[in-house]
Amino acid sequence: MMLAACLDRLRASSPLIHNITNYVTANDVANLLLAAGARPIMADDPRESAQITAGCDGLHLNLGTLSSRTVPSLLSAGQEANRLGHPVVLDPVAVGASSLRRRLAGRLLDTGAVTVIRGNASEIRALALDAGAGSGVDAAPEDLVTEAGLGRAAELAGALARRTGTVVALSGPLDLVTDGARTFVGRNGCPEMARVTGSGCMLSALTGAFCAALPGRPLEAALAAVSALGVSGERAEGRRLANGTGNATFRNDLIDGVELLTPDILEQEARYDTL
Amino acid sequence: MMLAACLDRLRASSPLIHNITNYVTANDVANLLLAAGARPIMADDPRESAQITAGCDGLHLNLGTLSSRTVPSLLSAGQEANRLGHPVVLDPVAVGASSLRRRLAGRLLDTGAVTVIRGNASEIRALALDAGAGSGVDAAPEDLVTEAGLGRAAELAGALARRTGTVVALSGPLDLVTDGARTFVGRNGCPEMARVTGSGCMLSALTGAFCAALPGRPLEAALAAVSALGVSGERAEGRRLANGTGNATFRNDLIDGVELLTPDILEQEARYDTL
Amino acid sequence: MMLAACLDRLRASSPLIHNITNYVTANDVANLLLAAGARPIMADDPRESAQITAGCDGLHLNLGTLSSRTVPSLLSAGQEANRLGHPVVLDPVAVGASSLRRRLAGRLLDTGAVTVIRGNASEIRALALDAGAGSGVDAAPEDLVTEAGLGRAAELAGALARRTGTVVALSGPLDLVTDGARTFVGRNGCPEMARVTGSGCMLSALTGAFCAALPGRPLEAALAAVSALGVSGERAEGRRLANGTGNATFRNDLIDGVELLTPDILEQEARYDTL
Repeated sequence: MMLAACLDRLRASSPLIHNITNYVTANDVANLLLAAGARPIMADDPRESAQITAGCDGLHLNLGTLSSRTVPSLLSAGQEANRLGHPVVLDPVAVGASSLRRRLAGRLLDTGAVTVIRGNASEIRALALDAGAGSGVDAAPEDLVTEAGLGRAAELAGALARRTGTVVALSGPLDLVTDGARTFVGRNGCPEMARVTGSGCMLSALTGAFCAALPGRPLEAALAAVSALGVSGERAEGRRLANGTGNATFRNDLIDGVELLTPDILEQEARYDTL
Repeated sequence: MMLAACLDRLRASSPLIHNITNYVTANDVANLLLAAGARPIMADDPRESAQITAGCDGLHLNLGTLSSRTVPSLLSAGQEANRLGHPVVLDPVAVGASSLRRRLAGRLLDTGAVTVIRGNASEIRALALDAGAGSGVDAAPEDLVTEAGLGRAAELAGALARRTGTVVALSGPLDLVTDGARTFVGRNGCPEMARVTGSGCMLSALTGAFCAALPGRPLEAALAAVSALGVSGERAEGRRLANGTGNATFRNDLIDGVELLTPDILEQEARYDTL
Repeated sequence: MMLAACLDRLRASSPLIHNITNYVTANDVANLLLAAGARPIMADDPRESAQITAGCDGLHLNLGTLSSRTVPSLLSAGQEANRLGHPVVLDPVAVGASSLRRRLAGRLLDTGAVTVIRGNASEIRALALDAGAGSGVDAAPEDLVTEAGLGRAAELAGALARRTGTVVALSGPLDLVTDGARTFVGRNGCPEMARVTGSGCMLSALTGAFCAALPGRPLEAALAAVSALGVSGERAEGRRLANGTGNATFRNDLIDGVELLTPDILEQEARYDTL
């Protein structure tokens, strides 16, 4: 399916996405989903999380600012989504930075509920090697995927995808999207996206929306999401350079860009190849 | 009282509003209150919520992202506000989407503490019929109030107002504000407001600020709030169309618009009638 | 050290700052740190907070929206930072408004872990006198530091600094930065900064970043932070007046301004003197 058709499908179906996510970027995630044509709901109390999930079309589980309240919610919502066949996107924020996060990610992956893992290079590496990697929420410079390191990164991501039965979407200067058999390299985006908090969280939620709109096609959904956000980022970068603005305005332009994105623009400006 | 005078009163009194609210839109709610000339404080720990309420002029209770921490805070702050005669605005976010939310809303209404219920069409319908309605935080398309459905919606809102002893402010393409005896239809606003997360939460907080500035006149306060945000929304829509921006920039323009709103502009551009 | 060199040092070292902070302004705090050249992480679960702190370069403890979850995290992260010699900035948000906040601030100061206290005039007064002061998150008008009241405010801040072994940074229309021996008066900034929620929280986080970049020099770090944000605020104010925008856009321009701030601009536009 062409990317233009993926975006058409998303806008036509307007999926409702349940986000159990961090309080740092929740507002941006909600506005990004609205910009894309999806509908957000955030709810993380364990007494209602499964019920909320049941009323939605997709689930976005995000480990940023996890807590004793959200951990049981992440697990029960994941199980409910699995039972109902809803797509589940896991964003393993800073999974290399604490043993609590590593254990929780392991449990979520063991349940088999996860459809797509969307993380940065350090997070995917930590999950793939089951080891600490990176101490912050951003990828460590030595982990970033370069042209030279593409093969090694794809191997790591592919192994993680095969072991967990998921699609792995590793985002960064180069994006890798793989189900362990087929691998795409996405080449959209710009460095300023790393200077905005939440660009990863927004991408994870958008991936969930594309997955909900494209049932059974998580690989294409993840590629459409990285391409859509990357193209919007490039357009926001054009505004930033033209207007002499900084990262806060860039964040708005990025979300605006997703609302203004048309299927034609996405199709024409997306740059990716298969590995 | 004319709307211009309501806004003058709000700016002159600069009420301090205690918000027990969700983490998705808390930042926008705080900036909206500052834009209006009020002052925000957010605090939701049960050990301090009643004490914080006692130091404020009004209370905004919002069910978005409720939790075992915020539920007792919502109840105790509501009681304290009631004891002190402070106005209380309830925003029953997504009340139709979970039984937990329905039970809590019922308890809050049973305490008699609520002055104004501010919700979208699905939320008001769920409360009025004590039933599930809508699965997300946005109104379901079939619930939206149209010219043709105005009478039926006003009946529902009026019955809820009479049963609970509150003013009901139902916002959407058309706004309905009623105390069960008198009913206003507000006609300001624009569709882009529904593509921004938190426009409802901001309206609820603003309603609380107007209520605090206009003691004993919650019907006029609620009308002033929907009109003020609606007029600001129309002005933001003008900027959006002129600048080719999207929903994130619209959100900023909307808050900016409330800061830039003058009593004269509000008086001239507000459009409402009685039903 | 000149301010230009302080900013150079911050950008060169790109410190990772652990923020245990409120959910109202967490997004702005994260984007401000990124704008400054630092890196943010937010994590507040007591099971991981010390481990996260250990992987970071500095700690920002913020009492806004404190809870039974964050209180033990604030304490354990503070102890861990102390053990490792990391700088700790305490933002005593609304400390005068509840006894819970006063007790917690007292405990944090008693541990000896705090390097810098960054608060507004009412908060510093409440800590200095160990009394209630102010009922909101903003300074009470009667507490604001004026030219006439400079001596008395400096005395209060200096006594607090000496008693707690900290640097005290009191921000407002005039900023006071003191270690109890030396005192600087900062004169940058603009009134619109008080109409944006989170300008204080952003300043506290920025102070933490400068402290981490300038080990053992918290007085200069705090002065650099108030100057950097104040200069950025003045530049944002220029855009606000030129474009006829309001407080939400001002917030973006403020964060943008920190990203666009060069060491030369900071050096040239900072205005401060010693008392």
